[in-house]
Amino acid sequence: MLNEYDCWLQKREIKAEYEIPKVVCADVKGLVAKQAIIEYCLGIKRLMDFSPKIIKKHDKTIKMVCLNYSSPDYSRVVRPARDSFSIKVTENQIHITGTDENGLLYGVFRFLSLLSLGKIKNGFELTDAPVSPLRIINHWDNFDGSIERGYAGASLFYKDGEFDYDKNRIEDYARLLASVGINRVSINNVNVRAQAKLLIIEEYLKEAKELAAIFRRFGIKLFFSINFGAPWSLGKIKTADPLDPVVIEWWKKRAALVYKYIPDLAGFLVKADSEGEPGPFQYNRTHADGANMLAGALAPFGGEVIWRCFVYNCTQDWRDTQTDRARAAYDNFMPLDGSFEKNVILQIKFGPYDFQVREPVAPLFGALKKTRHIMELQITQEYTGHQIDLCYLPWIWEDILNFDTGYGENSRIRELVDGKKIEGFAAVVNVGQDNNWTGHTLAQANLYGYGRMAWNPALTAKEIAEEWSALSFGKEETARKTADILLKSYPAYEKYNAPFGVCFMVNPGNHYGPSIEGYEFSRWGTYHRADKDSVGIDRTPAGTGYSAQYSPKNAAMYADVNTCPENLLLFFHRLRYDFVMKNGKTLLQNIYNTHFEGYDEVVSMMEEWKSLKPNMETEVYESVLARFERQLANAREWRDQTNTYFYRKTGIKDEQGRLIY
Amino acid sequence: MLNEYDCWLQKREIKAEYEIPKVVCADVKGLVAKQAIIEYCLGIKRLMDFSPKIIKKHDKTIKMVCLNYSSPDYSRVVRPARDSFSIKVTENQIHITGTDENGLLYGVFRFLSLLSLGKIKNGFELTDAPVSPLRIINHWDNFDGSIERGYAGASLFYKDGEFDYDKNRIEDYARLLASVGINRVSINNVNVRAQAKLLIIEEYLKEAKELAAIFRRFGIKLFFSINFGAPWSLGKIKTADPLDPVVIEWWKKRAALVYKYIPDLAGFLVKADSEGEPGPFQYNRTHADGANMLAGALAPFGGEVIWRCFVYNCTQDWRDTQTDRARAAYDNFMPLDGSFEKNVILQIKFGPYDFQVREPVAPLFGALKKTRHIMELQITQEYTGHQIDLCYLPWIWEDILNFDTGYGENSRIRELVDGKKIEGFAAVVNVGQDNNWTGHTLAQANLYGYGRMAWNPALTAKEIAEEWSALSFGKEETARKTADILLKSYPAYEKYNAPFGVCFMVNPGNHYGPSIEGYEFSRWGTYHRADKDSVGIDRTPAGTGYSAQYSPKNAAMYADVNTCPENLLLFFHRLRYDFVMKNGKTLLQNIYNTHFEGYDEVVSMMEEWKSLKPNMETEVYESVLARFERQLANAREWRDQTNTYFYRKTGIKDEQGRLIY
Repeated sequence: MLNEYDCWLQKREIKAEYEIPKVVCADVKGLVAKQAIIEYCLGIKRLMDFSPKIIKKHDKTIKMVCLNYSSPDYSRVVRPARDSFSIKVTENQIHITGTDENGLLYGVFRFLSLLSLGKIKNGFELTDAPVSPLRIINHWDNFDGSIERGYAGASLFYKDGEFDYDKNRIEDYARLLASVGINRVSINNVNVRAQAKLLIIEEYLKEAKELAAIFRRFGIKLFFSINFGAPWSLGKIKTADPLDPVVIEWWKKRAALVYKYIPDLAGFLVKADSEGEPGPFQYNRTHADGANMLAGALAPFGGEVIWRCFVYNCTQDWRDTQTDRARAAYDNFMPLDGSFEKNVILQIKFGPYDFQVREPVAPLFGALKKTRHIMELQITQEYTGHQIDLCYLPWIWEDILNFDTGYGENSRIRELVDGKKIEGFAAVVNVGQDNNWTGHTLAQANLYGYGRMAWNPALTAKEIAEEWSALSFGKEETARKTADILLKSYPAYEKYNAPFGVCFMVNPGNHYGPSIEGYEFSRWGTYHRADKDSVGIDRTPAGTGYSAQYSPKNAAMYADVNTCPENLLLFFHRLRYDFVMKNGKTLLQNIYNTHFEGYDEVVSMMEEWKSLKPNMETEVYESVLARFERQLANAREWRDQTNTYFYRKTGIKDEQGRLIY
Repeated sequence: MLNEYDCWLQKREIKAEYEIPKVVCADVKGLVAKQAIIEYCLGIKRLMDFSPKIIKKHDKTIKMVCLNYSSPDYSRVVRPARDSFSIKVTENQIHITGTDENGLLYGVFRFLSLLSLGKIKNGFELTDAPVSPLRIINHWDNFDGSIERGYAGASLFYKDGEFDYDKNRIEDYARLLASVGINRVSINNVNVRAQAKLLIIEEYLKEAKELAAIFRRFGIKLFFSINFGAPWSLGKIKTADPLDPVVIEWWKKRAALVYKYIPDLAGFLVKADSEGEPGPFQYNRTHADGANMLAGALAPFGGEVIWRCFVYNCTQDWRDTQTDRARAAYDNFMPLDGSFEKNVILQIKFGPYDFQVREPVAPLFGALKKTRHIMELQITQEYTGHQIDLCYLPWIWEDILNFDTGYGENSRIRELVDGKKIEGFAAVVNVGQDNNWTGHTLAQANLYGYGRMAWNPALTAKEIAEEWSALSFGKEETARKTADILLKSYPAYEKYNAPFGVCFMVNPGNHYGPSIEGYEFSRWGTYHRADKDSVGIDRTPAGTGYSAQYSPKNAAMYADVNTCPENLLLFFHRLRYDFVMKNGKTLLQNIYNTHFEGYDEVVSMMEEWKSLKPNMETEVYESVLARFERQLANAREWRDQTNTYFYRKTGIKDEQGRLIY
């Protein structure tokens, strides 16, 4: 029976044609390697229902599983071999070998996964290495126990202004993350407010130390989100100017204190000069000044600064058509390329706006040449349905990874994330205290998919959906249909949302459900300016010029309405409703069509889910069905409000005569 | 110098041509009468800077002020004489005589007011009686210290779930209210939640008793807002069914307990079956069943039940064009006319919606024949600018009072509020812990104006503005200009808001600032359904039929687009933008014009205020100026968002070529 809490690490009765040896040979010293042995034994108990016997001495003649790793000194392992492993199955022995401790752990988890999927056979061989060195989870957890954009219960870490966690649950969480290759976790919200500012205070560090110790066994290092204004808010210094010697000294001492407690802390994550957070702009300093100062403080301890590029004017006047928020990250950071210290990593949201359902890949990718950087994704469904609506995100991530930045050969995102250009990913996670971790049980696939894609960006959304479904649901038909539902979910969600990349027709504040003019007169810089004739923003050189931030090839593609991808038409162009799209229908008719279709596709997903009732645990079946019912109501609002909005603006009826209000 | 805290009871140096006697003759026993003597002495000290000598025995030959009242038994005074007074000034004596204790108190306050205004002369005579017996203030104060729709600081009564008040401040507050004739105060929010439910519990009654004692001295009785569901939420009874004997018995006992502590409690105020509050509908009972049950419990103690008529479907589907929220109060309560007990009073919002800037007078007024009822107004500026924007409300109240219900002779509202038909007013108050009570200092005029108009509905907004300004600011030019600004404020506010009675183009939730489609797809039943050609709701018999709820005369007037008042055109009619209004301009051009004018009028009010700088206390000048600056920004948003919205819908430019975005 499916146990929601166990996610993709379900208890199974595996009938393997290859008999798994009862003996394990392992003689390891490291903490992570020891955990790998434990995980192997737990996994075998879970899948095969026996407990292996562990011996220290290898003997070729005995049927056994050999768990080992090559280099005891992690720091000497060269990328990309770091974290990698090989699995080799011979007639009487299985070898799982990591290049390093983490590699062994990942090898064990992969082996168990393959075993669960029925793929372990005599002669099986696999060597695998993660493409990117940084596979990060960001928590937006607040110390009061709430989670910004969290839809699955309270924080796993905090409550009422203090650390407050269940060690067993944190271990289970670390296991889930390590099982899909995650190696970094930032543990607090990038908006560092209230008690979170105290995370770098001795009292709180004592608590953080214990949390770090749990994650450490699973090869996961922690980041702390810090508040750039800490020198004055905590240190009672009158400034946080990054070039002020008192400030510099304050941060150095603070870093020394932090590393006394957590010597392997990955570093600091910083949201500065963004949506009200303090930053170097307040002191007429550049973001390089700010980041480099912190980098200097962390360098002696091997720490890194991750600096977010989500910097834009959030007090725009809607009457101002010159300012284009989409331009902000590139305008702010491109001129700084090459001026960051070597332990500074920029964290760039995948798109120029903010995790919209459909927006282009941000132009900094491919363009930055001399600055370390990673891509920020969002697993938590802020704009994609709050884990009420089903929305399988690897679908869109595959699109992002396939995006060709147009700078020379091998310039697709998935070719750039090689540890030299883009060094990996960070993603805002979707978990909380709900028993199933993610609110919507099927949203577990998004967490799983993030880990898998961050490890191997060449994996397709379909492959991952099938893998996750099989691991979670086992039974062939159930897994097949569930994967099918997952794969239908993103296109459906996109169809009933804001049309053709126009973005932000969503309820302000909570970001669930439609509000077609919700952001139209706001200060957030996200407008569609629909009138009776046209909709969308001209971001070509004739407009805001945003399209020119791309490589020449992409700039040309986006600027031309005939080559611009249709799902981004209204992001780049202002078009008349009678603009004829590739299918021969007008833009307006396509808006109507997609919205009717999106709703119908939710009906269809729900029907498919209902067909699984006989195969499904009642609790899981009912909880997912209840969410589909809420999704249907949401899709209906999106469909009707969007269509009504444009119908009232234009007076043009649907060509099929369907009901618009 | 103006002391904001003292409101219209300013300290003044009055140079009266008539010399006020130094001796007061008063021999009274009652609590309120004694307070009247105290108030006389305080007032004379404040205005004349001397303390009168009080003697008991009257002597015609001595120059003295005689304070007295006719009937010691309040209950034997017949309306409308109750609460009334006479003032008579002869060469050597002044007589202030109440019909009862309250009358004496009101007489004293009026005398002091007239003295301050320089009107007390030899031969002066005045007899005055309030037109309505009920002149009620409603507090929407919550026990956590917040005030629903409060814009002037925290509650005067509560903090952190308990009674917590400054006795001196409550006394000052009671004085302000009594000075303008208020005789009832409900002390807690009609949404009775959290600890407010405990108000009828012994522990809380002990606290309420002390509060009641302060108000009692000023002739003010308290109402408690109660929760209709109390029998199950407090009493652990499984139902609150008003016809259930257990419930009936529970309320009787509860009433007995309440009256043990406050024997002169005015009664209960009830919001039932409204916006989520419990009510008789839950048990398939009528509102008469509910109100009468409570009335039965209160009757032995002389208490009354005030039952709000704000009952409507607040989960409407915006697609549903048949349901019309405006119809709700009449549809729900008209059929019950005559079925309420004699100690039940219906409290009816002045309009069919909810305190909008411009809506028609509710059709229940004039129509109800056999049911006691009062009119509910709102002094706190929920939809009228949050005491950031200046909005002098007696302006609109005068319109309401002048509205002719069309049922026979003398059928104007101000003729109906005679204590026999409409028995008076309740108004949600605008005060809080701010030093000036009302946030915006000039918003004190609204509290003053409410009391004055409730006392005498024949007073004009202009008369009240001049009276309040003179009492507050004294200096002739300052008072004149301030009154002028007050009188300009409502027309300006109305112009830059939702046009021509269309209502609810306001930000959902907080109700400040524009959101043209903010309620368009919501569940609140308040839609304008603007499309490219037309805007407004057809409420004629061809539409929802709301207009037919009025007297035949008014029904005909509203149903005809040519006779419908233009400020309510879009409340009653759906009109094309090219509809030609009486000034020969189209509806659309009038929308543009009013919005440009409204903003300009704010500029003009602000300039006029600036001209008062030399005459004004810096603190008052600056705080009001700061609010004008915020109002200007608000008016600009209303102007531009409204005009832009309609321009984008129609594509028709302003005939004067003014900037629309």
